[in-house]
Amino acid sequence: MERKPVGMEVFFNPRSIAVVGASDNPGKLGAHVMRSLTEGRYPGKVFPVNPGKVEILGIKTYPSLLLIPDSVDLSIIVLPAEQVPKTIKECGEKGIPGIILITAGFKEIEDRRGEALQQEIAEVAGQFGIQIIGPNTFGLVNLHLPLNASFTPEFSRVEKGGVSLISQSGGMSHLMAFLAMRHQVGMSKIIGLGNRCNVDFADMVEYLAQDLQTKVIAIYLEGIDQPRRLIEAAERVKGSKPIIAYKVGRSVTSDKASQFHTGSLAGKHPVYQGAFRQAGILSVESAEELLDTAKALALSPVPEGSRVAVLSGQAGPGMAACDVCENEGLSLPPFSSDTQKRIEALLPPLAIRTNPVDMGPAWYDSAAIKGIVQAVLEDENIDAIILCIMFASANRGAVEGLSDLLLRKGRKKPVIGCISSPVGIWEEEIKRLEGSGIPNYPTPERAAKTLVNLVRFKKGRSVLNPDF
Amino acid sequence: MERKPVGMEVFFNPRSIAVVGASDNPGKLGAHVMRSLTEGRYPGKVFPVNPGKVEILGIKTYPSLLLIPDSVDLSIIVLPAEQVPKTIKECGEKGIPGIILITAGFKEIEDRRGEALQQEIAEVAGQFGIQIIGPNTFGLVNLHLPLNASFTPEFSRVEKGGVSLISQSGGMSHLMAFLAMRHQVGMSKIIGLGNRCNVDFADMVEYLAQDLQTKVIAIYLEGIDQPRRLIEAAERVKGSKPIIAYKVGRSVTSDKASQFHTGSLAGKHPVYQGAFRQAGILSVESAEELLDTAKALALSPVPEGSRVAVLSGQAGPGMAACDVCENEGLSLPPFSSDTQKRIEALLPPLAIRTNPVDMGPAWYDSAAIKGIVQAVLEDENIDAIILCIMFASANRGAVEGLSDLLLRKGRKKPVIGCISSPVGIWEEEIKRLEGSGIPNYPTPERAAKTLVNLVRFKKGRSVLNPDF
Repeated sequence: MERKPVGMEVFFNPRSIAVVGASDNPGKLGAHVMRSLTEGRYPGKVFPVNPGKVEILGIKTYPSLLLIPDSVDLSIIVLPAEQVPKTIKECGEKGIPGIILITAGFKEIEDRRGEALQQEIAEVAGQFGIQIIGPNTFGLVNLHLPLNASFTPEFSRVEKGGVSLISQSGGMSHLMAFLAMRHQVGMSKIIGLGNRCNVDFADMVEYLAQDLQTKVIAIYLEGIDQPRRLIEAAERVKGSKPIIAYKVGRSVTSDKASQFHTGSLAGKHPVYQGAFRQAGILSVESAEELLDTAKALALSPVPEGSRVAVLSGQAGPGMAACDVCENEGLSLPPFSSDTQKRIEALLPPLAIRTNPVDMGPAWYDSAAIKGIVQAVLEDENIDAIILCIMFASANRGAVEGLSDLLLRKGRKKPVIGCISSPVGIWEEEIKRLEGSGIPNYPTPERAAKTLVNLVRFKKGRSVLNPDF
Repeated sequence: MERKPVGMEVFFNPRSIAVVGASDNPGKLGAHVMRSLTEGRYPGKVFPVNPGKVEILGIKTYPSLLLIPDSVDLSIIVLPAEQVPKTIKECGEKGIPGIILITAGFKEIEDRRGEALQQEIAEVAGQFGIQIIGPNTFGLVNLHLPLNASFTPEFSRVEKGGVSLISQSGGMSHLMAFLAMRHQVGMSKIIGLGNRCNVDFADMVEYLAQDLQTKVIAIYLEGIDQPRRLIEAAERVKGSKPIIAYKVGRSVTSDKASQFHTGSLAGKHPVYQGAFRQAGILSVESAEELLDTAKALALSPVPEGSRVAVLSGQAGPGMAACDVCENEGLSLPPFSSDTQKRIEALLPPLAIRTNPVDMGPAWYDSAAIKGIVQAVLEDENIDAIILCIMFASANRGAVEGLSDLLLRKGRKKPVIGCISSPVGIWEEEIKRLEGSGIPNYPTPERAAKTLVNLVRFKKGRSVLNPDF
């Protein structure tokens, strides 16, 4: 990016970054921030600031922000809290439009001086029109630039993709990133909002709604002072892309903990749920469900209705998927007579050939499996497919060619997979399937639950905007 | 094992095995069974039987069972269904006490001749007093011998441990084994019961209750003809070791599918739930929950009550754990004043020092973390701990020494972990923690749900056997 970034762009596509409090002492967060930028291959200029150093990681280091001879788009501050107001003023004088304020010790601490300090920095920032992410944040990551502006270099190991996470908790962001690494969920931005000095969920939702690299917005929140701003922002962007939220603080104790953690009351859970529904935000109940659902919305079409076909290479996992589907209001209707005939031509009578299909005796036969999937994709009685295939050494070829079939342009029906195998087997095949828009899950229950959420999302969106 | 195995021992500790239908053609299941035995390093004698071969995988092959010059404890049959009755008769004549009948095409198929054939083999087996596992099974695995008597050589990659699985579905057994591999859950036996010709859940529960290598019995079932036998067996062994069951067939369609799959009606779900409760069987709702709970019961002590402390390095995951705990009836009481003082001496006032504890500013300080865990372990107001620590490169040493503390002999309080990190980091540490009896989970919600199940198990057991 050569042009000057505007608005939120200073956080995600800065041309240059100053690290105030940069260090080469691994006991200091400033050292980890420097590693994140360099190991994460940030392509812009980096200016470490530390009065005691002439260089850090081989990069020329400045005694003060004001002595940097170049313009700076973003400043990452990792200084003790009491030095922060002065530094923000310097940022203003230097004309730096954005700050990531990693430092903790503000509104979230018991000592009420923390709140006063946060008030003070908000005022200074306001005078200069500086946007601040934080304080009390790990930072943020834009995997597409790439930019790892956090104190955790390992965030750069997450695959690049379409899911952006806005989080009120650094711990939860780390957890979700580690889950994303293990399950190969591609992410776009990971943002720790921390105490939300002057950048809040609403601002971020509006930015990500316009961001071409973000397909799905996932939100983790505990409690916020101005939930209405978030709801209104979500309503404004509704229909443009899916928003999913996981809100903790249902219980008395976690509600209380929230107040300390980021200085806000978690507030009444049912109120949030109602507001989410109204704004077309899909609400989920765990970190795993947030990521599972976000992945599906990033990769897969959304079903037109709630009529599911369960196709399984082995009956047990198919039954587990059926239980979740029916329990959550999806139906498993009979196939059309044409589909039924096509399936019967492909499967011997030893199999269960009605919905749910147990492909049993054809479990190793990739041609039969493909034929059945294709027939059901074309069945007007069916809106979505759950496909469960467990590896065994005798069916190693079972999923061959399936991705080509499913990659077909214009496929409108979601196919949610539970293709399961030992580490090192079928990994390429599963990657290819996900590339063809078949999100894959480790268990049939999670695959089914994800489909339930796609249907819930579709229904929520229809109510808001029937033409969508 | 040199002595002649008796009863179920013929399946798990046979001195010699005949594979009837052995093959070296990878298109045949008989080839995969041979690989399972050899690659799985079965220490006994293997006798392949195939009239068209003189050797398979370098092992002398016999044209008929009756020509094997040695005694045979177990026969694995992988022949077409119509050849099975004759072969079982030969097993009888040869004095073979146990058969694993992998062949499908019996009671589970649409064609009613399948049911007649199953009846026929049951009668032949009865005449000779032969026990049969199957038909329509993948086989079984005893990771401790080791014996992989299945058509899936990859089962041998599962770690050896204390969880035994009895399953009515081959697909679900594969799924659970793959999950166990990924989450390093140690297993003892994995048994596919298939159509249960004359060995059923009840027989297996009674055997595993006595088996020294089995600490926890996990059951996956769809529906059985004689649930009362299982319930009575569970009642007989109650108190000796935990039994956990995951039963599918809650929905209309999966109930129907069950009938086809293994020839039994899944039957009324609530009836099963009531019977499970009565027999002290802990019921769970997904494959993941079955394995998560089994792992905890294999590794961890069971809590005396339902008073939980949540200790987290970062507040967010701790709050998520609190939500699950409170939602499911556990309490998060205040600490004793002594504990409170000890925590306040270890944590600065920036942290949340009451339950749930956010160790925040001490997140990298392994001495403080250990001190807090120890104080809470000694607090009489607390029955169990959930410990959440997310990796960041700045807290790499956070869990150091924790396993030594927790390994302490006589520890009676469970500590359930959600220690989360990228692949390749903290893997040794987590392994050591699990070795010290701290089961670890990928999310705080799953850690909390597992603790809920330990409490449910304890309560169920107290009712059955208050002295336990």
